[in-house]
Amino acid sequence: MKQRLLYLHSKLDELNLDALLITDVSNIAYLANFKADDCYIILDAKKRYFLTDFRNIEEAKKAVKNFNAVCIKDSVFKTVPELIKKIKARRLGFEAKSLDYASYAKLKKDLKKNCKLIPTFDLIEDSRQIKTESEIRLIRKAVNISIGAYRFVKRIIRANMSENDLISRIESFIKDKGAQGTSFEPIAASGRHSSYPHARSTDKKIGKNSVLTLDFGVDYKGYKSDLTRVFFLGRIPADLRKIYDVVLEAQARAISKIEPGISAAQIDAEARNFIARKGFGRFFQHATGHGIGLEVHEAPFISKKNKKPLIPGMVFTVEPGIYIPGRFGVRIEDMVLVKKNGVEVLSGALNKSA
Amino acid sequence: MKQRLLYLHSKLDELNLDALLITDVSNIAYLANFKADDCYIILDAKKRYFLTDFRNIEEAKKAVKNFNAVCIKDSVFKTVPELIKKIKARRLGFEAKSLDYASYAKLKKDLKKNCKLIPTFDLIEDSRQIKTESEIRLIRKAVNISIGAYRFVKRIIRANMSENDLISRIESFIKDKGAQGTSFEPIAASGRHSSYPHARSTDKKIGKNSVLTLDFGVDYKGYKSDLTRVFFLGRIPADLRKIYDVVLEAQARAISKIEPGISAAQIDAEARNFIARKGFGRFFQHATGHGIGLEVHEAPFISKKNKKPLIPGMVFTVEPGIYIPGRFGVRIEDMVLVKKNGVEVLSGALNKSA
Repeated sequence: MKQRLLYLHSKLDELNLDALLITDVSNIAYLANFKADDCYIILDAKKRYFLTDFRNIEEAKKAVKNFNAVCIKDSVFKTVPELIKKIKARRLGFEAKSLDYASYAKLKKDLKKNCKLIPTFDLIEDSRQIKTESEIRLIRKAVNISIGAYRFVKRIIRANMSENDLISRIESFIKDKGAQGTSFEPIAASGRHSSYPHARSTDKKIGKNSVLTLDFGVDYKGYKSDLTRVFFLGRIPADLRKIYDVVLEAQARAISKIEPGISAAQIDAEARNFIARKGFGRFFQHATGHGIGLEVHEAPFISKKNKKPLIPGMVFTVEPGIYIPGRFGVRIEDMVLVKKNGVEVLSGALNKSA
Repeated sequence: MKQRLLYLHSKLDELNLDALLITDVSNIAYLANFKADDCYIILDAKKRYFLTDFRNIEEAKKAVKNFNAVCIKDSVFKTVPELIKKIKARRLGFEAKSLDYASYAKLKKDLKKNCKLIPTFDLIEDSRQIKTESEIRLIRKAVNISIGAYRFVKRIIRANMSENDLISRIESFIKDKGAQGTSFEPIAASGRHSSYPHARSTDKKIGKNSVLTLDFGVDYKGYKSDLTRVFFLGRIPADLRKIYDVVLEAQARAISKIEPGISAAQIDAEARNFIARKGFGRFFQHATGHGIGLEVHEAPFISKKNKKPLIPGMVFTVEPGIYIPGRFGVRIEDMVLVKKNGVEVLSGALNKSA
């Protein structure tokens, strides 16, 4: 935690900032290991301030190390300008992606001409891409709880069970295993419904001969997992099996390419080009994967646009899919860790034979 | 739903706007009855556009009535400027509280000089304060599920049960009763822990002679409830009972004042002044209540600052509290509906005798 802060102090100088206001909740959790509403961090060249209101201040004082705790009086727009005046900052960086326009305008007004607001982008998000050993331990735990849940599903899934019932059973299971909860609203989409990549579960009963796409993850001490498997009930139609095999091979090819130095876009292209060669290109419209950690979706994004090289310590999903409108969809999603000499599939222990 | 849209069209002219971009998810749900990631609404004088990407577009086309569905290609920053050009808007309003600075700056750049971006505040939030009959029905249902859950807690609560276990039991209960889930991370704070107004539940076991503050709500078809009760296990210390009675009377006094025309600040003052007269003023630092509906916290806020009058159809919480640092805290929270000739306590059926 201390190292993350020291890195950020060093960045201020580089960016010609006197201080930095941090408003993104995941970034705050990353720097201070504390998550609650209405928390803010301000760093200057040497010191760190953790701002929160009376509801959280007592807890924060105990929990947040390496910071001066500051209680917000009345409004953060009063407390921030006061603090900025005290530390004599004349150029204050802020997180452009997490500060809403109304707050920006109010802060700008309240700081008057004494201090200039400078937008910053992805300062902390960029660091968060590279996971430390302790973060990887928590992610592994989140992945392993998910793997257990998928095996549990394999045992209990039946035709005539509703999608929502299945999700409820999963939620109980993962909490029993120590997860705080799911990491996003789980997707359980059976039959034709599976052709929507982001279908929400319904009270619909799973049919006797049908395909079910199940996509969920857990939150373990703030760190997330995200895996997808397809379940077949009864006979698998030949065309569906063919598509399943294409997605499976597209994923295997993408994963086999992962190593430090290769770009995210090249990994995306590996899956995308294979699917296109098999004639399903227009049925795979989303990116091949996304980074995952304190947020379910974070950098690095494994998409056409991301030309940046992979670096050891990155954790992301690999999840190609083919969705035939009105018929069915198939997506297979695993989580990988980039290592010095290749890749580890964190969810490799989970079966994916159709 | 149609009426909400017509009202908004009429507002455009009043605000001298050619079009309005809506980015807040609850406002989008309010106008289109559809909730998903990456959805946007644009209204001009006559037409309404619902923008979402390929993942949701098929579902949206079926679900969203009264709108033209537009599929976002590549990025919303490409699709919005194209649409704005097509509808020839020269003044585009946006929601200042829900558009982040980075998106604002990008949009401003992409719209070039053809169209000016104008911040708007609380346009839809203001309408949402006044609930319709159909919204009140859903809120009643959410409240009633919560009431059932509190009665269930009364039956099962035991010393030595952990706070987290209690929350898990509640979560299963409310889902069985048809709730989508809890409306926020439930608070279960026993013993000294109860002196933090926003304490999160832990694995701590509830003591034999202790006080437990339980604060949770449910989400029923998008509409939220939020109630708090205090449970006493074993003997109630005299000082705690005294404080409980003060909070209870403060709440009763505030509720009895509620009627159309009186200001939110007057309701707040009623509870606050009573607590102050009893000598506990400095131990009640939060507002007396908040509006509730599609969001757990929304307008009207029942605080010192809100001088606006109450209007029939408003639904909000009344939740004074006294928190003695290092010892214990008491908060009692009910939900009320402002009616033409007074007030209805929506959660009135739930016992609150200590």
